[in-house]
Amino acid sequence: MISTSARMPHANMRPMAGKPHIARRMQDIAPFHVMDLLARARALEAEGRHIVHMEVGEPDFPTPEPIVAAGRDALAAGHTQYTPAVGLAALREAIAESYSERYGVDVDPGRIVVTPGASGALLLTLGVLLNPGDQILMADPGYPCNRHFARVFEGEALMVPVDAASDYQLTGANVRNHWTGRSVAVLVASPANPTGTLIPRAELTAIDQFVTGKGGVTLVDEIYHGLVYDGEAITALSISDQIFVINSFSKYFGMTGWRLGWIVAPQPYVRELDKLAQNIFLAAPTPAQYAALAAFEPQTGEIVEQRREVYRQRRDFLIPALRELGFGIATVPQGAFYVYADCTAFTDDSFGFCQQLLEEIGVAITPGIDFGSHRAREHVRFAYTTSLEQLEEGVERLRRHLR
Amino acid sequence: MISTSARMPHANMRPMAGKPHIARRMQDIAPFHVMDLLARARALEAEGRHIVHMEVGEPDFPTPEPIVAAGRDALAAGHTQYTPAVGLAALREAIAESYSERYGVDVDPGRIVVTPGASGALLLTLGVLLNPGDQILMADPGYPCNRHFARVFEGEALMVPVDAASDYQLTGANVRNHWTGRSVAVLVASPANPTGTLIPRAELTAIDQFVTGKGGVTLVDEIYHGLVYDGEAITALSISDQIFVINSFSKYFGMTGWRLGWIVAPQPYVRELDKLAQNIFLAAPTPAQYAALAAFEPQTGEIVEQRREVYRQRRDFLIPALRELGFGIATVPQGAFYVYADCTAFTDDSFGFCQQLLEEIGVAITPGIDFGSHRAREHVRFAYTTSLEQLEEGVERLRRHLR
Repeated sequence: MISTSARMPHANMRPMAGKPHIARRMQDIAPFHVMDLLARARALEAEGRHIVHMEVGEPDFPTPEPIVAAGRDALAAGHTQYTPAVGLAALREAIAESYSERYGVDVDPGRIVVTPGASGALLLTLGVLLNPGDQILMADPGYPCNRHFARVFEGEALMVPVDAASDYQLTGANVRNHWTGRSVAVLVASPANPTGTLIPRAELTAIDQFVTGKGGVTLVDEIYHGLVYDGEAITALSISDQIFVINSFSKYFGMTGWRLGWIVAPQPYVRELDKLAQNIFLAAPTPAQYAALAAFEPQTGEIVEQRREVYRQRRDFLIPALRELGFGIATVPQGAFYVYADCTAFTDDSFGFCQQLLEEIGVAITPGIDFGSHRAREHVRFAYTTSLEQLEEGVERLRRHLR
Repeated sequence: MISTSARMPHANMRPMAGKPHIARRMQDIAPFHVMDLLARARALEAEGRHIVHMEVGEPDFPTPEPIVAAGRDALAAGHTQYTPAVGLAALREAIAESYSERYGVDVDPGRIVVTPGASGALLLTLGVLLNPGDQILMADPGYPCNRHFARVFEGEALMVPVDAASDYQLTGANVRNHWTGRSVAVLVASPANPTGTLIPRAELTAIDQFVTGKGGVTLVDEIYHGLVYDGEAITALSISDQIFVINSFSKYFGMTGWRLGWIVAPQPYVRELDKLAQNIFLAAPTPAQYAALAAFEPQTGEIVEQRREVYRQRRDFLIPALRELGFGIATVPQGAFYVYADCTAFTDDSFGFCQQLLEEIGVAITPGIDFGSHRAREHVRFAYTTSLEQLEEGVERLRRHLR
């Protein structure tokens, strides 16, 4: 009991607030460890230290000029009100058309649901799919938020350990081996984060056949499509129109801060996605949607293809340089802008190793723990979202430090 | 079993897709009925009919010019990358400062979490607060999405019927009467949608004292703050710094399509909100955040205050006109841009009544069913988000039809 004086003002007489009422799910939702490293990097920079940033999972290029111009024009024209929950009709059509042009796959614009980023796309999709206790299979290592999207809906991410032997991708065999009576879906990412690898068509087909046979659903995260340096990624839509495809304007089109992505959904789910989007988002940001109409113009295409070439050069510098230093890169990442490297030549604690590199030589990379638990302490992720000069400087600092 | 020919191509040999796998929660998540009316209104307009739109819950004014200019400048300056998950530091400071200026309440900028709209704010807040089975009390009638935010997290919205006698607001007494062993929170909206009413300070204080005494949490939706025509709304933050306040740039600042809102959270919850935001949103849209910095400038203040005056004139026309026609408006709405009216003089089926008005006289209004179930068939909502001329035309059509 709190003793209160009769002269204390009314507002202070209410009971003291108790312990915060925080839902159990929050115990399972981890912050990004790299955020602490990033905060420390900023603090070091504020002290005058120079930091080589190889931890950032975001393009270092600004949004291409034609997209920015379209966004500015849309604002000047007063396009500042809500769009339909599933997005502007013209944008849905442009996205659908892009599948025909890039992949030769016909997609009905009515199956496109425009979302606030790929984050919004995954949130909607899992909200429509997962009952409490339902499992969704995904690769470990993988993008850390994916398991949390399942957790917020009281579903369960069933993490399947993957290694270099399968290019860090799920296979038909390991989906079959891990599937349980509670499994309802599988999530594949191609190119993947943190590993940059692609899934072969045959494996994705095998996975989808197995999952469909079990009455489940296949989801494929294609947000790094376009950023592929060896060959060309296939879209899962060329395998089946019953696969959910998640994509985004963030990476290839350099629109991270605009928050715009999309789902290509199997037809029977569109109405449910629409309903959920109406209720939890209202709609994706309007200026971003108008801006994105310019993403498919030839002028933008030239810019993003030039950038892809720059990323390729960075990758082709970084991989042999890191191998020479003693990092293990068992499979060459074909896409995205990441290298997932074995660091057991130097440490058995990749998180401590990342902290040490930041403090001692001002090199920021991401520890494996941000991507799961399978051999996480043995791995780090390098992002080549900084200039070749910075990458060279980073490698040089590592060379001096690790020799 | 499906019989397949050996010569059929491989891709067709996979099992037929079964029934869609749609989570149970989707059965409880209703679409907005007004969307069907809106679609029908658009179809009638396409046929050449003129429709008076009094169904739209969105300002008819574009975003004020200084905000648009700031957004365009931000794009030109290349501000297109992610911000921190809790928002730009400068925006959090500007929002905190606005509480001091407008209400004389000190708020630590560290307690502001910038979100993708008030929708994002409610999603984060309930995601952090609600375990499966936990109840949150809210008024019926009320904003329909609120109960769905609880449902997506497997929580339960406990709808408390409210009437004109309490200005359609919850009271200390009815929160006490409805609170159960599973209740953990109460959500108040002031001004409210669909009723436009304010909650008196004494009732909100009584509610918060009761809820806090039970170890629960009070949430107050203040998204229509600024749009108040009789007196001035108090902020719940002047009652307690342990109340969650939800707000938005959408209504008063006319920024609906930008998708930008915020939470003022009790300090112990900020870290959890940050963690959840990182994972499910990454961040609110960057161009919107830069644009919103101009919302607190004096020039914007003049524009939005002029608009408030226009809304007031519309309200002051509409209420007596509707009463004269025979609609029951037992309590004068002090804020927002809605009139919630009893239509039992004309019908005992407000949904059918709305459909009829649209088809026969081209007047679009929203049926009570979009806001709950308590006496929903006896009520409709008029929105004065259209010009005085249009409101006059709408009233004239109603006069001829209902006489």
